[in-house]
Amino acid sequence: MVGGGQLARMTHEAGIPLGIKFKLLSDTPQDSAAQVVSEVVVGDYRDLDTLRAFARGCDVITFDHEHVPTEHLRALEADGIPVRPGPDALVHAQDKGVMRAKLTEIGAPCPRHRIVEDPADVAAFAEETGGFPVVLKTVRGGYDGKGVWVVRSEADAAEPFRAGVAVLAEEKVDFVRELAANIVRSPHGQAVAYPVVESIQVDGVCDTVIAPAPELGERLAGEAQQLALRIASELGVVGHLAVELFETRDGRVLVNELAMRPHNSGHWTQDGAITSQFANHVRAVLDLPLGDPRPRATWTVMSNVLGGDFPDMYQAYLHCMARDPQLKIHMYGKDVKPGRKVGHVNTYGDDLADVRERARHAADYLRGTITE
Amino acid sequence: MVGGGQLARMTHEAGIPLGIKFKLLSDTPQDSAAQVVSEVVVGDYRDLDTLRAFARGCDVITFDHEHVPTEHLRALEADGIPVRPGPDALVHAQDKGVMRAKLTEIGAPCPRHRIVEDPADVAAFAEETGGFPVVLKTVRGGYDGKGVWVVRSEADAAEPFRAGVAVLAEEKVDFVRELAANIVRSPHGQAVAYPVVESIQVDGVCDTVIAPAPELGERLAGEAQQLALRIASELGVVGHLAVELFETRDGRVLVNELAMRPHNSGHWTQDGAITSQFANHVRAVLDLPLGDPRPRATWTVMSNVLGGDFPDMYQAYLHCMARDPQLKIHMYGKDVKPGRKVGHVNTYGDDLADVRERARHAADYLRGTITE
Repeated sequence: MVGGGQLARMTHEAGIPLGIKFKLLSDTPQDSAAQVVSEVVVGDYRDLDTLRAFARGCDVITFDHEHVPTEHLRALEADGIPVRPGPDALVHAQDKGVMRAKLTEIGAPCPRHRIVEDPADVAAFAEETGGFPVVLKTVRGGYDGKGVWVVRSEADAAEPFRAGVAVLAEEKVDFVRELAANIVRSPHGQAVAYPVVESIQVDGVCDTVIAPAPELGERLAGEAQQLALRIASELGVVGHLAVELFETRDGRVLVNELAMRPHNSGHWTQDGAITSQFANHVRAVLDLPLGDPRPRATWTVMSNVLGGDFPDMYQAYLHCMARDPQLKIHMYGKDVKPGRKVGHVNTYGDDLADVRERARHAADYLRGTITE
Repeated sequence: MVGGGQLARMTHEAGIPLGIKFKLLSDTPQDSAAQVVSEVVVGDYRDLDTLRAFARGCDVITFDHEHVPTEHLRALEADGIPVRPGPDALVHAQDKGVMRAKLTEIGAPCPRHRIVEDPADVAAFAEETGGFPVVLKTVRGGYDGKGVWVVRSEADAAEPFRAGVAVLAEEKVDFVRELAANIVRSPHGQAVAYPVVESIQVDGVCDTVIAPAPELGERLAGEAQQLALRIASELGVVGHLAVELFETRDGRVLVNELAMRPHNSGHWTQDGAITSQFANHVRAVLDLPLGDPRPRATWTVMSNVLGGDFPDMYQAYLHCMARDPQLKIHMYGKDVKPGRKVGHVNTYGDDLADVRERARHAADYLRGTITE
């Protein structure tokens, strides 16, 4: 696996029971996954020679993030190393311009969008689509609200162009809430769909995920799952695909983002589904039959733990574990920095209000924003 | 953790979500746990200097097995390293003579027993307890049927004395079945009890565990749990304690063996309980509040996978995963040798016959004793 973040950490955890040999390419020996994996190569994934040396002897390569240059992935494939997801799929999660063009081509519902050249062009796009605000995104390199701007005027629109990366303009969708349709697809074409979840963002960062999305009609849930399955098939995705969606006021779903790897909106599956997204990602990448994606509880809630005031989590563990013996804590071994995702908690049960409160309390306590 | 077997492997897996730093002392770099842990020291646990060097910088030491010499554990404690379970507790899992003496002292029900000196003394013991057969055990070093003999005559009784280790004689109990009462206890005295399970042995090796034990009356289940809690408290156990029991024909339980570490009879908890034995062992050893031990399913069945004809498990995975998408496979990364425990499977559901059949089929298929 390329990339030493928490997704690699949790993928390794999920791979241990299968007895597979897991090798990691990590930026540093301190990265989240590097702390818990036996075979770690420290190196730069942007360097093709490093990637090639790492890949030697691997049966298959997969990823913790989407940042490996597409041309390097093509080079690995040319060397005969299976890359899953492959570059032709992954480019759609790497480049938002390519993603929007392809989704439009296959008729997947998207916000109105086009590549814009400069602030004047943004104003023209606003004119075409009903006015400001407009969402601007650099086509490459963004995540967790980085590389995304909501601009309210032409004068406001200069910043995104400074990076020298192409900029995509999208209408600001009047959405009721955000959903995610997560599926896993294997090379031989088997696919499983997890229940559609609601994803609640705070300051552009995922805060809480509720599985399944409350009061989501069967029709729309089915549509969202079918949409994700169709995107995976049309784009040739192998592994976990997260399709982040807007639920519009008029009862439609529009594709917001794609991620081709385990995803924050699927962390609830570790404790809430029969097979976790991580286990199914491993199975897909190895072309093994996929595990049952159905939920094990009526409701599962995931809340992210952001870095706060506790450099040492031990005291917080004492409180949280004693208060809620059913609580599931997942920490990433990261240095605590304010605002950084350092872990998440999962709770489950039959009473949604209770399940949400337990996750909220634990996440806030572990961050240090509450003390009782 | 001292010892690189599958228990350490699964303990590491369970510790990853807590963000703890896990260090392993392993006999070889190829041991089951050494394959998946980042920080591995290769060395001999029988050597005190090796143990001392390993323990330096550890907040606490725990074990994959009971074989570390008791006097070495006392030396580590004298060095100021917390050892959990400590030597005063662990000696009861190391030395069956000490265990029987202590259990008798606290009034825990045991088969009739005494240390025997030679075959003539075995015959005398048989005389006292109703005749042959008699069970002979070396007081140290046995596991999985090794170090245990069922002898039918004085002439039969020579073998156990050849090792030069003290020999314990026990009456051969006329039991209905074997049970296990598993509990976890923390240094501050909190304890949780898992449901009592039925353990089915084949050729002296655990084959299948059913949780909870079918048709076990509430009274006897409660007695078994109370007995395990009392033993843990009286012996000062910290961490997971497995109390292996005989259920007698007249409706009592007798203590067969003690294990003070995660145990084969608790593997079902990985997929069948809210908190696994491994997670609770870690929490106990770190003196954190314990997790909820209750089951998540009506029935959970664990069946061990013994080494068989498949050196490579991939083809078997294809069949087993496709046949049963809910199957949970746990392999240990061990070289497959005939008869060696190389993994286990867990299944769960509402219909015990179905749950058992699925576990049986998968274990047999993975071993290679069936091919469809």
